[in-house]
Amino acid sequence: MNAFNFLTTDRPMGKTMVLDKGLGLNEVTDLIAVAGAHISFVKFGWGTSAVSDRNLIQQKVAAYNAAGITTYPGGTLLEVAVLQGKYAEYLNEARAIGFTGIEVSDGSTVIDAVTRGELIKQARDAGFFVISEVGKKNPDLDHELTPTERLAMIQADLDHGAHYVILEAREAGKNIGIYDANGQIIDDELKVLAQAGVEHLIIEAPLKAQQVALVLKYGPAVNLGNIATEDAISVATIRRGLRGDTVGKV
Amino acid sequence: MNAFNFLTTDRPMGKTMVLDKGLGLNEVTDLIAVAGAHISFVKFGWGTSAVSDRNLIQQKVAAYNAAGITTYPGGTLLEVAVLQGKYAEYLNEARAIGFTGIEVSDGSTVIDAVTRGELIKQARDAGFFVISEVGKKNPDLDHELTPTERLAMIQADLDHGAHYVILEAREAGKNIGIYDANGQIIDDELKVLAQAGVEHLIIEAPLKAQQVALVLKYGPAVNLGNIATEDAISVATIRRGLRGDTVGKV
Amino acid sequence: MNAFNFLTTDRPMGKTMVLDKGLGLNEVTDLIAVAGAHISFVKFGWGTSAVSDRNLIQQKVAAYNAAGITTYPGGTLLEVAVLQGKYAEYLNEARAIGFTGIEVSDGSTVIDAVTRGELIKQARDAGFFVISEVGKKNPDLDHELTPTERLAMIQADLDHGAHYVILEAREAGKNIGIYDANGQIIDDELKVLAQAGVEHLIIEAPLKAQQVALVLKYGPAVNLGNIATEDAISVATIRRGLRGDTVGKV
Repeated sequence: MNAFNFLTTDRPMGKTMVLDKGLGLNEVTDLIAVAGAHISFVKFGWGTSAVSDRNLIQQKVAAYNAAGITTYPGGTLLEVAVLQGKYAEYLNEARAIGFTGIEVSDGSTVIDAVTRGELIKQARDAGFFVISEVGKKNPDLDHELTPTERLAMIQADLDHGAHYVILEAREAGKNIGIYDANGQIIDDELKVLAQAGVEHLIIEAPLKAQQVALVLKYGPAVNLGNIATEDAISVATIRRGLRGDTVGKV
Repeated sequence: MNAFNFLTTDRPMGKTMVLDKGLGLNEVTDLIAVAGAHISFVKFGWGTSAVSDRNLIQQKVAAYNAAGITTYPGGTLLEVAVLQGKYAEYLNEARAIGFTGIEVSDGSTVIDAVTRGELIKQARDAGFFVISEVGKKNPDLDHELTPTERLAMIQADLDHGAHYVILEAREAGKNIGIYDANGQIIDDELKVLAQAGVEHLIIEAPLKAQQVALVLKYGPAVNLGNIATEDAISVATIRRGLRGDTVGKV
Repeated sequence: MNAFNFLTTDRPMGKTMVLDKGLGLNEVTDLIAVAGAHISFVKFGWGTSAVSDRNLIQQKVAAYNAAGITTYPGGTLLEVAVLQGKYAEYLNEARAIGFTGIEVSDGSTVIDAVTRGELIKQARDAGFFVISEVGKKNPDLDHELTPTERLAMIQADLDHGAHYVILEAREAGKNIGIYDANGQIIDDELKVLAQAGVEHLIIEAPLKAQQVALVLKYGPAVNLGNIATEDAISVATIRRGLRGDTVGKV
């Protein structure tokens, strides 16, 4: 039971994906105890899971899984594996470590549409929860993608079996995807992407103003991603009208 | 005894209010061990205490209290309770959890002056340490408050029994209250508010440049608020001339 | 053994200096477990080690030392000691606590070249690993230093026995040393300083764009400093081409 529970009501809330960029076990324990109930996915950011001790990564993954959270390594690590022709080993190692999800992306490399579809299908066939990501890490390359092209990628990914599609915004959330150089939402861009069905999307929203804007626009059921671990609780309050920006508005 | 204690001298220091936006027990233990001696108040930011397990919040509050720190839930939660007509339940639950302080604010809602005074009095009568807050969370609304109006609110709150009055600056510290869009102090505004007596104010100063400017302006006895947990030690060094910005100047 | 170790190859990597601005023991344990293998130096920022309990500082230092990490108090604390004429006591206390390194700087005070050389020599004679720092904490004073003057200081410090020389960028990394007001590298400035031999320098690079730019410019063997504790793992991935910005480029 939560403290002050007579002030809140139970309502369906969107998924929250948190970005773990290298927490230790004490921090993971804290995060789960404080905010675990509000977290659906933990992404082990980009290649971070490949530079720490394997036992430690296993223990972290096990702790998150035990709390009912889906865990997956960042798409950048998958891209490195694909680049090296080691996708089968990648899936095997991910499973051996205990990851329950796989992210398929081409943010840092070039992967053709057919291969992309295959990667998604193979990960699903291997029993993973599959999340794909649309967008380029390099802003110049990212700007070349039109909203229509992004929408087509989203729909293709969903057709190939992706459970959710992430809209890329990186850790910083500026000058990329649906955000302008100040991190503000480009409405015309988002409007096109939303045609895929907002419920299928996880919108990366690392900045508070973005989280607030998306909750006010789509309601608390919107799925938000790349939430910093220390902001997981804040996002839970924004969704529930318990932070100044959304009091009386959700 | 502190390390290198022959380099420092004991002097009266202002109060520091730290913003806990969802720490876990390991982090609370760390914060108290490292910086507990420099912290007077811990605010459980806005409605964060209403989205975590009640036992966990109780344990956190107990740990802070045991270290001699006054604990209180953010004013936004009080405003939600008042909005729902549940102020008595709010005070009861706060006491049952172990909170020793109450913050009275109208940053996100409209509360008339008479009610505000009543809220302060009731919280004092219930045995709480009472801190009020002046300012609006929404910058547009906040800008409508003149310095003279703010000063009148501060004086009224003190008259009604508030132990301290906080100058609102939110977590970000920009474009609000005494700070311009770059987070720099608006001297003409602060000058008016200081007429209430700086010793009665807790000035929210989340950014380092603000902490430095206020310590240089009013000396190390100035009361600072909304300090990020990871900056509590830094603020202690700024007050003592142990950070570059204040070496030889305090 | 690291997770996904078939995706990475062992190569010599540059030193990473991490800025500890007041971690507790749980956080130190986490940092060492997650990223200890990638950290060469931990700086206890500015005067932070003089405002916490001595036993706690000793325990933190011991934990880092046991992980093979060189520990030292920030140069600002040395400057305060020198200002008070207590350098001998300072070195004794640092040794008694267990610090294995000393940083010599004049970022916040004025120390003439002869004294600076003496400080470096005395610290070396006392058995410490010695790192000096070039640059002023106050941007106005810092801008008065020409690249040629900085280069001369670097070379003099190395001549006096400094093991490395740090290029100052503070915690924020903007409008100081080799960085302009946006935190971007001033190439003409860096080019001059690099004449001292990049391998002798630790370049403070608190911002991700700086870390990426320096790794792309000098390769993964470049020594980087003032890395936030939560970014230690990210820097390890940037050096290894495991983050979007450097995939396929290092």
